[in-house]
Amino acid sequence: MAQRTPGFSGADLANVLNEAAIMAATRNKKVIDNEEMLLSIEKVMMGPERKSRILSTKEKEITAYHEAGHALVAHYLPHADPVHKISIIARGQAGGYTLKLPDCDKHMQGKQEFIEEIAVLLGGYLTEQTVYGEVTTGATSDLRRATHLARKLVTDFGMSDRLGPRTFGEKEEMIFLGREIHEQRDYSEKVAEQIDQEINVFIQQGRVQAEKIIQQHRSELDKISQELIINETIEKGAFEKLVGPKPLA
Amino acid sequence: MAQRTPGFSGADLANVLNEAAIMAATRNKKVIDNEEMLLSIEKVMMGPERKSRILSTKEKEITAYHEAGHALVAHYLPHADPVHKISIIARGQAGGYTLKLPDCDKHMQGKQEFIEEIAVLLGGYLTEQTVYGEVTTGATSDLRRATHLARKLVTDFGMSDRLGPRTFGEKEEMIFLGREIHEQRDYSEKVAEQIDQEINVFIQQGRVQAEKIIQQHRSELDKISQELIINETIEKGAFEKLVGPKPLA
Amino acid sequence: MAQRTPGFSGADLANVLNEAAIMAATRNKKVIDNEEMLLSIEKVMMGPERKSRILSTKEKEITAYHEAGHALVAHYLPHADPVHKISIIARGQAGGYTLKLPDCDKHMQGKQEFIEEIAVLLGGYLTEQTVYGEVTTGATSDLRRATHLARKLVTDFGMSDRLGPRTFGEKEEMIFLGREIHEQRDYSEKVAEQIDQEINVFIQQGRVQAEKIIQQHRSELDKISQELIINETIEKGAFEKLVGPKPLA
Amino acid sequence: MAQRTPGFSGADLANVLNEAAIMAATRNKKVIDNEEMLLSIEKVMMGPERKSRILSTKEKEITAYHEAGHALVAHYLPHADPVHKISIIARGQAGGYTLKLPDCDKHMQGKQEFIEEIAVLLGGYLTEQTVYGEVTTGATSDLRRATHLARKLVTDFGMSDRLGPRTFGEKEEMIFLGREIHEQRDYSEKVAEQIDQEINVFIQQGRVQAEKIIQQHRSELDKISQELIINETIEKGAFEKLVGPKPLA
Amino acid sequence: MAQRTPGFSGADLANVLNEAAIMAATRNKKVIDNEEMLLSIEKVMMGPERKSRILSTKEKEITAYHEAGHALVAHYLPHADPVHKISIIARGQAGGYTLKLPDCDKHMQGKQEFIEEIAVLLGGYLTEQTVYGEVTTGATSDLRRATHLARKLVTDFGMSDRLGPRTFGEKEEMIFLGREIHEQRDYSEKVAEQIDQEINVFIQQGRVQAEKIIQQHRSELDKISQELIINETIEKGAFEKLVGPKPLA
Amino acid sequence: MAQRTPGFSGADLANVLNEAAIMAATRNKKVIDNEEMLLSIEKVMMGPERKSRILSTKEKEITAYHEAGHALVAHYLPHADPVHKISIIARGQAGGYTLKLPDCDKHMQGKQEFIEEIAVLLGGYLTEQTVYGEVTTGATSDLRRATHLARKLVTDFGMSDRLGPRTFGEKEEMIFLGREIHEQRDYSEKVAEQIDQEINVFIQQGRVQAEKIIQQHRSELDKISQELIINETIEKGAFEKLVGPKPLA
Repeated sequence: MAQRTPGFSGADLANVLNEAAIMAATRNKKVIDNEEMLLSIEKVMMGPERKSRILSTKEKEITAYHEAGHALVAHYLPHADPVHKISIIARGQAGGYTLKLPDCDKHMQGKQEFIEEIAVLLGGYLTEQTVYGEVTTGATSDLRRATHLARKLVTDFGMSDRLGPRTFGEKEEMIFLGREIHEQRDYSEKVAEQIDQEINVFIQQGRVQAEKIIQQHRSELDKISQELIINETIEKGAFEKLVGPKPLA
Repeated sequence: MAQRTPGFSGADLANVLNEAAIMAATRNKKVIDNEEMLLSIEKVMMGPERKSRILSTKEKEITAYHEAGHALVAHYLPHADPVHKISIIARGQAGGYTLKLPDCDKHMQGKQEFIEEIAVLLGGYLTEQTVYGEVTTGATSDLRRATHLARKLVTDFGMSDRLGPRTFGEKEEMIFLGREIHEQRDYSEKVAEQIDQEINVFIQQGRVQAEKIIQQHRSELDKISQELIINETIEKGAFEKLVGPKPLA
Repeated sequence: MAQRTPGFSGADLANVLNEAAIMAATRNKKVIDNEEMLLSIEKVMMGPERKSRILSTKEKEITAYHEAGHALVAHYLPHADPVHKISIIARGQAGGYTLKLPDCDKHMQGKQEFIEEIAVLLGGYLTEQTVYGEVTTGATSDLRRATHLARKLVTDFGMSDRLGPRTFGEKEEMIFLGREIHEQRDYSEKVAEQIDQEINVFIQQGRVQAEKIIQQHRSELDKISQELIINETIEKGAFEKLVGPKPLA
Repeated sequence: MAQRTPGFSGADLANVLNEAAIMAATRNKKVIDNEEMLLSIEKVMMGPERKSRILSTKEKEITAYHEAGHALVAHYLPHADPVHKISIIARGQAGGYTLKLPDCDKHMQGKQEFIEEIAVLLGGYLTEQTVYGEVTTGATSDLRRATHLARKLVTDFGMSDRLGPRTFGEKEEMIFLGREIHEQRDYSEKVAEQIDQEINVFIQQGRVQAEKIIQQHRSELDKISQELIINETIEKGAFEKLVGPKPLA
Repeated sequence: MAQRTPGFSGADLANVLNEAAIMAATRNKKVIDNEEMLLSIEKVMMGPERKSRILSTKEKEITAYHEAGHALVAHYLPHADPVHKISIIARGQAGGYTLKLPDCDKHMQGKQEFIEEIAVLLGGYLTEQTVYGEVTTGATSDLRRATHLARKLVTDFGMSDRLGPRTFGEKEEMIFLGREIHEQRDYSEKVAEQIDQEINVFIQQGRVQAEKIIQQHRSELDKISQELIINETIEKGAFEKLVGPKPLA
Repeated sequence: MAQRTPGFSGADLANVLNEAAIMAATRNKKVIDNEEMLLSIEKVMMGPERKSRILSTKEKEITAYHEAGHALVAHYLPHADPVHKISIIARGQAGGYTLKLPDCDKHMQGKQEFIEEIAVLLGGYLTEQTVYGEVTTGATSDLRRATHLARKLVTDFGMSDRLGPRTFGEKEEMIFLGREIHEQRDYSEKVAEQIDQEINVFIQQGRVQAEKIIQQHRSELDKISQELIINETIEKGAFEKLVGPKPLA
């Protein structure tokens, strides 16, 4: 149930091109099309499909709502990348995924964009909570990433008004036999408490934004998840038929 | 006195099949039956029987009540897997064990299921407390696992309403000569206190559920443990004759 | 001045049998008798006698009272193993020792038994305090073991009602060149305080039990220590002549 | 968006001379001119230009304002080195940069100079905040360096009146396989809080100075950034045409 | 200015005998006398004499008073070993020393003996304070040893009534390339404070005992130190002529 | 701007003699004179002169006042060693230095001498503060050494009346591949606070003594620094012409 914003390493890019070339060859094409490129990107980003993983009907439904939640929140938040595909076919570690692709490269990100990214990450968790009244273990990696983001806003990006324009924590590399990055605490316990509180503030801001969308578009959530249960994947076009085009920022 | 929910590694599976094949061959069978499969699963999960371990009459009784407690709680909790076998024959580290098998694969688990898992884990401890007024060292690994579960609900799964949808603690791998996973505390002392309190809340919730069942079905506890003292093991069929079929959720 | 409850490793057992065989051979016996077995157990458990260590008259008296204290408390506590031998001949690290042997194997232990074990461990220390008004360094390993036991009741066995049915502290093995077990604190400072307090509660419970026996049987303490000063060892039979047979639980 | 005060290692100097020699040779010059020297210094200090990095119009504008902010604050603060060049062409890690060169070597620096250095470092961040109401991730390394400076004022240079003429923290080198400098905390939690507060005081002092300049010279900010968006770089001469010569201290 | 109670390792004993044999041979003796033995013990315990170390008149006087203080306190405390020799000739690390030899072997020590040992250790420091109103660096190793002793009373020997019959701190050996004994704190901050306070209590008890003797025998202090300034060493006989025989306990 | 009290290692001494021999040979002398000895000591203690380091007029003035401050405070404090030379020629790491030589060897030092040593160390820092109203980075190593001294008074020498005659902190050597001395905190947070406060007390005492001298002899400061700006070094004789002979203690 992970969802990723692209961000490829050199090795990733080589993999994507290899995959696409193989796919094109298999299909007897002489050139690699946009279609092969997107499928390869998906495979490299999320890992290969794991069709052997058989979900119970209930699990399938939860997964569908979870991914529908990510997609819905991403759709209605102005800075979130547009949804390209939603799937409840397991890939790698993830039970399902929502693929978003930005319209252009991004080199700088503001606080509001991060809050929305947190909101999208919480979208699956909060949808489960809204629909079932409780959440599953499926949201763990979403929560971990949202927490990391919120922490970086506070300790690296100077985006907490309360803690001000400074950074916290000394990163250091310790090389024994392997390589390990250890973060040394260079602040007092009192500041540690303030950092905790500010992380909560950002998590809470993302939560409020996501919850508002989930409540206002409750029926669309049902539609997307019904569609996912039936077809397992929804492409961008089909998605926008269900929820309309992404609203302008 | 441990009790395990299945969850096999690849090596475990290979072991199970080997054991089953050997068992079938020993019995001059040409195919591996369900019976050999279950016995092999039991052996791989719990270790070989240790008949040399001779319990005193008192210890045998305590072990019987302890396992009866696990089984009873698992039987009456809607999300717990059905009991397949109870035994007070020592296997590996455990003095006795209760084998539960799920009706189908599970990939996602909700808070209520975890609370019930904690309740089942505490079932032996609480039964000893109810019957004898005090507990033995036999519950240590049950308590350790219940604590680990409760901690994960709070720090990994975002299931504490008070601490909210975020994670706590940075896992890092330190590779010297061996391999060690070290969890770095990335939160303040105040949050550490809240985590402690929330772990207690979940332990307490499991405890309340287990205690209720133990008190309401006190006489069944006696029946199961009597039977165990006499026959040392109770299979699913015999178990359900004593306590009735597992109630529907 | 240590006193040990048996608990042998495989290597210990091999040592015991070797010692017994050598002893029997030296005595021109063809079979190993119970006598050789017990002497070998003593030697393996406590180390060889160190007759070269010459105690002053005062030290001999203190040692005698110290061991008498262990023996007396063990004798009058229902769950403590019966006393087999008391000695003030130095063995290994210990200046004297009290050998207790259980009537049968034990696999499970309840809180009350542990409290009594703590009481027996404190028996020497408290006897010194009663007789001389102060204690010597001879009790250090007794205190260390009592503290370890009390800690395990709280952190591993779930026997503190206040802290409840859970465990505390993550054991981890770190393998560099040697092997080291490191216990990582996974709880808050507040819980650390509660653990300290609960350890004190169990130490205090053991202390009260031991002190009661020491005060009620003050004259027997004198008799045992007089006997020890004269003969250096007291065997089970002679011991029970002084204090009567171990009372039934 | 970094900005650096020169401070070269021996290896840096060798690199600068090599670069300058190559550049002069490419231009068929027999001697290395001031021009080649400055370009080489720029290249060694900031890394090679990364023209492949294509910024969106919005990102270009933000970068332009960010660098304009650094330059403006440096220009109006008496102790800051004069601005030699501003650029929004990406180099190495930085999206843009402001190159300042001191008029003479500096061996000693006073508190007021450091506060101004902090002010210049915060100039980009605060300009983004003023112009857009929020900041981007582009200021992270500026903030990290400002924090390091502020910490050194407090813990190494004795420049906090409240904490007085002493140092804090024991630097130690731990040599395993690699080399690591670890700072050991040799003070109480209470002092750690005071250090945190004093760091904030210095950051705040730099902030106030920078904000005052940004508000008083708001229109010049727009002019510099317009110019940067059009021409991508502004040399010292052009810069001073926009904002006048650097005021005397 | 150290003072040591004997406690020899096997290697120490071998060294003592070698030294004594060489000394006897040098003196053309066929047997080793008590005299050679004592001189060798002194040399092995304190290191060789360092006559090259030339003290100023003032330093000589301070050293004389310091050693006189150790000797005086040891002389008047009932459990302290009798003084065999006082010297202000530098040996090894020490500027002077007071040699005490017990009348018999000791295997057990009570709290009162430890308090007196602390008192003797503080004797030099407190004498400097009494005579000069301030102390020198010469007392450092005395203070370190007194602190270690006081800590052991509290954490290892159970001699603090307030903290009770238990031990504190887990000793662990970490073997990398060398060998290191690391003491792991296994108690809360609150207990750490109590340990600090109890250490102070024992230090204070020793201090009070030493100060009382120093004040009551002020003129003897002057006599001993005068004698030391003139002759540099005082043997047991000469010492007892100055202060009388050691009072009976 | 460092200033050092001599304290040579064996290797240092060998270096001094070598330097002196070379210098004498260069000057065609057959014996090493006092003059060559002093110059060699200076070179070994402070490193070779670094004439290439060109200070601005302002920096030269600050350095001159800084060194004048060290010298003045040393001159007027009774226990400080007499000033032998002041210099603002850079040597090794230091921008200038004040060379003091004791009249005789010292083996013991009292609290008052340490306070004065701290006062001399703070002399440069406080002079900058008095003259310019702020300090430069040039005082860092002075402050570090003053802090180390103050800490040792408290934790090693028992010179804090409040913390009493004991030591704090366990020194341990950890030998991996290199050698590292690690100081383990063996006291509570509360004691850590008291140590911080006592360090401040000693720093403050040194500060008060130095400030008094700087204020009372303000005009001499100007004279010394004028002289240093003109001649770069002042020898003992010239120094005493400016300020008179060192007052008797």
